[in-house]
Amino acid sequence: MKVSSDLIEFFKNERKFFVATHINPEGDALGSCLALSEALESMGKATVLYNRDPVPDFYRFLPGHEKFKNSFELLKSEELPLVLLDCNEPERAGLVKAPVRRAVVIDHHETRKDFGDIRWIEPYAAATGVMVYHLLKAMDAKITGDMATNLYTAIAIDTGTFRYNNTTAEALRIAAELTDSGARPAAVSEALYESWSGGRFRLLVDVLNTLEVVGEIAITTASREMFRDTGTTGADTENFPNFPKKIKQIKVSAFFREIEDGWKVSLRSRGDINVAEVASLFQGGGHKNAAGYTVRGDLKKAKEELIRALRSV
Amino acid sequence: MKVSSDLIEFFKNERKFFVATHINPEGDALGSCLALSEALESMGKATVLYNRDPVPDFYRFLPGHEKFKNSFELLKSEELPLVLLDCNEPERAGLVKAPVRRAVVIDHHETRKDFGDIRWIEPYAAATGVMVYHLLKAMDAKITGDMATNLYTAIAIDTGTFRYNNTTAEALRIAAELTDSGARPAAVSEALYESWSGGRFRLLVDVLNTLEVVGEIAITTASREMFRDTGTTGADTENFPNFPKKIKQIKVSAFFREIEDGWKVSLRSRGDINVAEVASLFQGGGHKNAAGYTVRGDLKKAKEELIRALRSV
Repeated sequence: MKVSSDLIEFFKNERKFFVATHINPEGDALGSCLALSEALESMGKATVLYNRDPVPDFYRFLPGHEKFKNSFELLKSEELPLVLLDCNEPERAGLVKAPVRRAVVIDHHETRKDFGDIRWIEPYAAATGVMVYHLLKAMDAKITGDMATNLYTAIAIDTGTFRYNNTTAEALRIAAELTDSGARPAAVSEALYESWSGGRFRLLVDVLNTLEVVGEIAITTASREMFRDTGTTGADTENFPNFPKKIKQIKVSAFFREIEDGWKVSLRSRGDINVAEVASLFQGGGHKNAAGYTVRGDLKKAKEELIRALRSV
Repeated sequence: MKVSSDLIEFFKNERKFFVATHINPEGDALGSCLALSEALESMGKATVLYNRDPVPDFYRFLPGHEKFKNSFELLKSEELPLVLLDCNEPERAGLVKAPVRRAVVIDHHETRKDFGDIRWIEPYAAATGVMVYHLLKAMDAKITGDMATNLYTAIAIDTGTFRYNNTTAEALRIAAELTDSGARPAAVSEALYESWSGGRFRLLVDVLNTLEVVGEIAITTASREMFRDTGTTGADTENFPNFPKKIKQIKVSAFFREIEDGWKVSLRSRGDINVAEVASLFQGGGHKNAAGYTVRGDLKKAKEELIRALRSV
């Protein structure tokens, strides 16, 4: 993966950076920002880390997570260059009308936008963390144990700890080097997968009890009562839509989560089944194997419409 | 990891090998045997693969799995050298009174036995597959796509696809090289984790519904009725004891599975809690974080005895 000399010059020449990532941040977003920030600071630079939302509780094992600020007021008094990670337009970071002097984008998501003075997009990179790893190497930054933990987490979360389709030899090789630099694979996995609240686990069991199988389609549901009974929120359902995919016969898993005035539907599919197409029929979107949309009104009707739509594609 | 010249000489000088592994074989046992067998055959040697038990259905994606024989009758007419993989005594392979000319042991389990003319034991290797990888390299065998899939699976299953404590930089680096040689991480993970029968999934939900939490101890149960209702067997409960460990507060997970005349108890623990010690109180055994035993009689009493024992250690 080639890092452009423009990008390296940018980091060399500027003195202070406003580093931001997308709203509702996850491990790749947070870990990439934290590793880059620490590297820049080790080179005598200053960074301000920004996220619109607070760092979720279960990501608070990431070294340096407390550095994130939730306000961009500062940008109004200081004209800083913006570094946007794991997203590629300021709106995705909640940075509407934020004045910036220059902007750099580093992202592995495919995109049709053209925001930024320097745009580095690698749609085939397993994670933005992989790109930041290459950037640090290109800048000759020494990778500390904390940077290694942040980048390892970034790559781990985006590859499902090396289980998803985007798990390349390169991702594994970088993970090995980060482990040499001090990342602890088992500790990261325990933090990511074995730090649930009791309520979240009970919610999972409640949700799995709703499983309906219609041919190759699995449907599960989380109602408002379940959230209330278990003291949980929508954020606790992360990864729930994947569970029914353990069943070999299931090609599409649909998870209905009750919201204010209807249902948020998460779709997961195997192989060639394009659920982004299905989601777009309901004004939603996403990727081929992971997409979603929201519907108003009755659950039974919403399920029937989805099954019809899935059978039509 | 150093491969002894004795071992390399052994494989160079012999012409035909009887390659065996432990009863109830899993991915590391099967993958290691299959990769070694293919490598030896590519060098013009002959191999006979033996396992007492049939290859479990969900390991039948392993290239060459159909080569396993379930009989060692052949050894009575031909005096072959034995290669024992992923175990270190013939009893563990169900090879009682099998006549062998010479015996080689390649294993990563700690041991107190001294069976074998050449014993290669690496207790710190993540999997026997790691050792076989080094052996193939030392013998200058070209690693084919099929060998890569077998060795990748061996390492993946024994490290929980890079989530367990034994996940070293070396394991990740070898996984990267095997991916370069043709292993497909996502396909292996799908075969290992997303190929359940519908009945197995319903059994999991039934089991999770039995969850009781007593302080830091989680207890789940699979009754004979559940197996009957879902058309499953004990083998389908692999990995079930780990699920309640998703809950941060849980330090020990105990899974009770009903058998003929009592219960088979599987214990999983975090960190320093030694469940092998607890299991030994009930004439069982295992490792520090994964152990088990069987009890006769009443479930309620068995649970109470276990809780008492856990509190005493």
